Amino acid sequence: MRYYMGPDVWESTVRDIDAAGHERVESLAEAEVFINTSSDAANVPDLPENIQWVQYCFTGVNHLIEAGIIRDGGVPWCNSAGAFAKPVAESALGLLLSQAHHHKAFALAKSWSVSKELDESQAWLYDQQGPKHVLIVGAGGIGKQLIAYLKPFGAHITAVNRSGRAVDGADVTIPIERVDEVWGEADFVINILPATTATEHFFDAAVFRAMKDSALFINVGRGSTVVTDDLVNALREGHIAGAGLEVVDPEPLPDGHPLYDLPNATMTPHMGASFQVAEHHMGAIFNANAAAWERGDPMPTRVDPRAGY
Amino acid sequence: MRYYMGPDVWESTVRDIDAAGHERVESLAEAEVFINTSSDAANVPDLPENIQWVQYCFTGVNHLIEAGIIRDGGVPWCNSAGAFAKPVAESALGLLLSQAHHHKAFALAKSWSVSKELDESQAWLYDQQGPKHVLIVGAGGIGKQLIAYLKPFGAHITAVNRSGRAVDGADVTIPIERVDEVWGEADFVINILPATTATEHFFDAAVFRAMKDSALFINVGRGSTVVTDDLVNALREGHIAGAGLEVVDPEPLPDGHPLYDLPNATMTPHMGASFQVAEHHMGAIFNANAAAWERGDPMPTRVDPRAGY
Repeated sequence: MRYYMGPDVWESTVRDIDAAGHERVESLAEAEVFINTSSDAANVPDLPENIQWVQYCFTGVNHLIEAGIIRDGGVPWCNSAGAFAKPVAESALGLLLSQAHHHKAFALAKSWSVSKELDESQAWLYDQQGPKHVLIVGAGGIGKQLIAYLKPFGAHITAVNRSGRAVDGADVTIPIERVDEVWGEADFVINILPATTATEHFFDAAVFRAMKDSALFINVGRGSTVVTDDLVNALREGHIAGAGLEVVDPEPLPDGHPLYDLPNATMTPHMGASFQVAEHHMGAIFNANAAAWERGDPMPTRVDPRAGY
Repeated sequence: MRYYMGPDVWESTVRDIDAAGHERVESLAEAEVFINTSSDAANVPDLPENIQWVQYCFTGVNHLIEAGIIRDGGVPWCNSAGAFAKPVAESALGLLLSQAHHHKAFALAKSWSVSKELDESQAWLYDQQGPKHVLIVGAGGIGKQLIAYLKPFGAHITAVNRSGRAVDGADVTIPIERVDEVWGEADFVINILPATTATEHFFDAAVFRAMKDSALFINVGRGSTVVTDDLVNALREGHIAGAGLEVVDPEPLPDGHPLYDLPNATMTPHMGASFQVAEHHMGAIFNANAAAWERGDPMPTRVDPRAGY
């Protein structure tokens, strides 16, 4: 297909797409597909009639739906769901281990004098005294990849999704309506929920209080699913032991925010699904969507504006 | 067997040992075995004739050999080799991912303004553009466990040991004499060497310069295997991209040491093989050694003073 890529041109992605027989053109007017490399809704141009569908180079589209850019009956948009399963699962495991073993606390302390205290309060993922319980809330593609990374540690995995349909590799799968039953069992809670109206502020004071005092909370989903002030309070008061946050609310987190100074809040600045990663995966995703479009099949990563992703 | 445990008594270990039919006594004079719970050579008492062998509750014994406490022809000592395979491998993977994803750099920066720079320079363990090359130097029990944790990431593993005999799960195994041939291939170098006269200052300026500029160096072996000043220099000058250090030389690392301030030197204060972990594994190790001793078989974790471990 003829495609226009903008505002940025991702060279390695262009190579992967052209290798599949598609043709890059220099303007939207000549194109059949628009490949949108900006995550900013303000950067989306008005689309001429000749644009049959849009390929978005990131995953979260909530802001584009709210802005009325992706809408029911409008031009179809595809996102990059699936591209980030490996990097985001890697980000989650890294944050879990880093927080469990107090990397940030030691980085901020800059003194060996804290070593006994850190040792005595560190957590372990491996099965020191029986399997650790990991709860994955929003277990889709990223969750499945994370399960593969967790399996060699002997972890017991409870997956939570909308349907309750069994997730491959999980020991137990439950529907999200029943998640309140299991907060108290989890040593590690991994949040991979997307940002939708249903998930907004899902993790609040009551949820953190229902978790074990020793629980670690990892968020690689979306910042808006958490009430940030409640999380800060839970970390300060010891309702949970620590957090590993790849996403927060708001982003960017302003300088001086208390999360920066909390030794038990390990953070990365939303870079699990990074530009460099996206660039290397985008070609294959576009090619699969384009092939489905040309066959008249459903495009694998087409966004459903009513579902919100 | 009748055993005396000191200077500290580890309650859960005592339970595990007594459950195997052994009997704890209150003095060395009544005992057949001494279970030594201190890692300090100065704490080792003179052993009466009735002590048949000693169980040491940690792994590294170099300092006890140098002090003449463990010696050829003396009373046999067993260490805790193997107890720490899972926790130390977990420590290594955590340090690798934490350094790869710039947890310390972001913790010290305390500002979202560094996010682009961190994103562009972060490393990935997963096979973004083909398998990542992991070099494990000193691949014994910890190395095998680490390989199990690395496998789901699709990593290509080169194991290095004394004999060059193939290590289970490694793609390639080479003897340590040939390690200079492969420094330049590795994305991640994991050091698990024990402290012996042969390994002292093994990692020096020349070795760091032979590595890729983008390499991450992880040390969960012993601090004395590294020339610390050379490592600091390599990190400052960019001869390697980062380090994850569970052990350093000296320990404790003095306050104000440059490693504390380097954003690309992620550290934990030698707590991968921690007291709490040792306590939970010691019983099984002692019981296996005691059973072998009573059968007249070689004890599984007996120290060889000539080899140094």
